[in-house]
Parts: sequence; C-alpha cells; structure tokens
Amino acid sequence: MGPVKGVRSKRMPRAVRERQMMDAAVRTFGQRGYRAASMDEIAELAGVSKPLVYLYLNSKEELFTACIRREADALIAAVRAGAEPRLAADRQLWAGLAAFFTHTAVNPDGWAILHRQARTHGEPFAAEVATMRDEIVAFVTGLIGAAARETHRESELAARDMAGLAQALVGAAESLAGWANETEGVSAKEAAGTLMNFAWMGLGDLMKGARWSAR
Amino acid sequence: MGPVKGVRSKRMPRAVRERQMMDAAVRTFGQRGYRAASMDEIAELAGVSKPLVYLYLNSKEELFTACIRREADALIAAVRAGAEPRLAADRQLWAGLAAFFTHTAVNPDGWAILHRQARTHGEPFAAEVATMRDEIVAFVTGLIGAAARETHRESELAARDMAGLAQALVGAAESLAGWANETEGVSAKEAAGTLMNFAWMGLGDLMKGARWSAR
Repeated sequence: MGPVKGVRSKRMPRAVRERQMMDAAVRTFGQRGYRAASMDEIAELAGVSKPLVYLYLNSKEELFTACIRREADALIAAVRAGAEPRLAADRQLWAGLAAFFTHTAVNPDGWAILHRQARTHGEPFAAEVATMRDEIVAFVTGLIGAAARETHRESELAARDMAGLAQALVGAAESLAGWANETEGVSAKEAAGTLMNFAWMGLGDLMKGARWSAR
Repeated sequence: MGPVKGVRSKRMPRAVRERQMMDAAVRTFGQRGYRAASMDEIAELAGVSKPLVYLYLNSKEELFTACIRREADALIAAVRAGAEPRLAADRQLWAGLAAFFTHTAVNPDGWAILHRQARTHGEPFAAEVATMRDEIVAFVTGLIGAAARETHRESELAARDMAGLAQALVGAAESLAGWANETEGVSAKEAAGTLMNFAWMGLGDLMKGARWSAR
C-alpha cells in the first residue's frame, strides 16, 4: 500500500520539499560549517537534485541567509511563547529560560548557525544575527521593565539599567547554551536552572547555599 | 633640543618600533575590520614603510593573529591583576569586573578585535580567541570555587555548577562590554556596577530595590 517512489516525490507539496531542503541545509551548515558545507551534500541529504536546490535559492550565500532567518525566527518564537506574561516575574523568567534552553538543545544545528557560523563568516551574515539579537534584547528589556513595575510602583531601575541587565542576561544565556550543547550530560533543564539561579538569586545568595525554587 | 627626524627613526629601538606597528595594526583592524584594513594604512599610521611591516610579520594574516594574541594576553593580565586574591569574594569579583571593563573601555579597538573581528573571520582567528576565552572561564571558575570554599566548608556548588556559573558570568561580561563601548555615555564603572549587581545580588534582589555595596 506504500506509495510508489516516483508518484510520492511528484505529489510532495512544494512547501514540504522546501522545508526538507532547509532542514538539510541547517543540519549541514550547523555541523560542517559554512565554508566546508557543499550544495551537493545538502541536496543529497534532502534527497533532491542539486539544480532543484539552486532553483529554490540562487546561491549558497542565499541558502545560508535563509537558514539564519528561519532559525532566528524559530528561536524568537520559542522564547516569546515560553514567557507567559501573566506569571509572576521570576516564574516568567524561568519559563522563558526553560523555553530558550530547550529550543537550543533540541535544535543544536540551528543554534550553532546563529551563535557560531553566522558570526564567524563576516557580512551579510553577522548583520542578520545582530538583528535577531537586538530583538531578543528588546524583548528581555521589556520583561525586566514589566517585572520591575510589578514589584514596586516607583521603579528604581532606570531604562538604561534595564537595557544593561538585559544585555547581561542575553550574553549569559548565549554563553551557557553553547557550553551546554558542547558539554556531555548537561541537560537543557540544568542549564536553565544554572542561569535562573545566577540571574535571579545572584552569586551572593548562591554562596550562602540559597537556591531559587519555583514554589 | 628635539631629535632630528632621521636620527630619531634610526635610533628607535626595534622593540619600540614593533610596538608602534602593532598599535597601528590593532587600531586599524579594530576600527576598519580585518578585510577592509590594508597593510598600506597600517604602515602609514605606524610611520614606517610597508616592506618593514612585512619584514616584521610575513602577512596580513600573521599580523592579525599577533594582534589577537597581544590583546588577549593584555586582557587576561588586566583581569588577573585586578582580582586580588586576599579580598572577600564579592570585593574580589568587583575588582575583577572593574579591571575588565576599564581595560575594554580604554582599549576599545583591542576589544573589538577579540570580541567581533576575530570571531567573524573564521579560522585560524576564531580558535585563537576561543583559547583566550577558555583561559578566562577557567580563571573565573577558580575564583567562584575559592569564594564558595571560603563561604561554607562543605560546598553545595558542584564543579559543574561552578563551570556553568563561570560561563554565565563571562558571557554576561562580553555582552555588556560590547554594549558599553557602543552606547554613548555608559562608563566602564557603570557597566561594571550593572554586572556586579546582576551577578552578585541577582534580579530578585534588584527588583526589590536592593543594591550591592562595597561597604
């Protein structure tokens, strides 16, 4: 009852085939690096002909740019969906961090593209990833601002303080995500827990043995 | 009484002239980027002939690699010198952070090379800067470990926790240093203060209006 090979590939909708090409490209770029990855390899992994890959996107550069955009959009969507705005500030942060680390653990190739590949191959790729980063920093600045307003009416945190704290938090998350993906046995939950304790409790409390707890 | 031009350049010791070439190279690479920077420009800024630059270092790639190493060594030395081991844990962290942000503010071109240029131009530069980063993470892990042992005999912080916290702290510092250098009017002291509060107090205390104080 299985579909005949030729029929199946004919019937596959364009959107599905494009998605498979992009999946193959993300995997290949993420694991082999931008320069080492070849269009042949990507076409073979996607199970399509090389001309079809070129028909879909004109060049390796365009394909890589499309990969950066897709992975950036997916990461931002995951973090936004994670941070539930009706939660208390600490629970909201925890939910956002858990979403971020789960996403980067489940999509290590996508994260490698955003965090490493896109930055190590100059323009126009570095600018693409910088745009995504600015969007995440703005989102986190908004979260910190909302949390500060919730906690005390007259906020002692100036706008610039919040921007600085958001930069610190985003930098810490980037660094830990790379570390977690490269360190054997460090789970997404563990990495999220480390950052939650660092960011919410601070080293001062951690040194005293205090830990953040969801309850 | 000022030295005659020709005499002056003849008498200049080799070490001084090499340092001037490196200073010119760091400034040019840091401000213009690795690709856009030309050996002509570097030679002109250093006040030497282009053949002399090539005599000192064989290629633009070698010169850039030498810049990365020099700036990495200087940054590590500054942080090590800042973190005075006899201080209490929080004062030690504050001293290390102040040293780091002062160094990156005073040497914005060196920091641009390490944080941006070296990473956006692939290998062998990315590996050079990764080595430096590993050294800083190991140093910070040691600081956190010493502080934890100081605070309570039976440390609740496992080795992997400390490595994760060090990754978070280093990532936050990298992110904030870039932000401080690019944001008008953010001083090194302010950036160090933001990170000290984030890292030591945590967002939980900051939301309540608590701040870290050296006293």
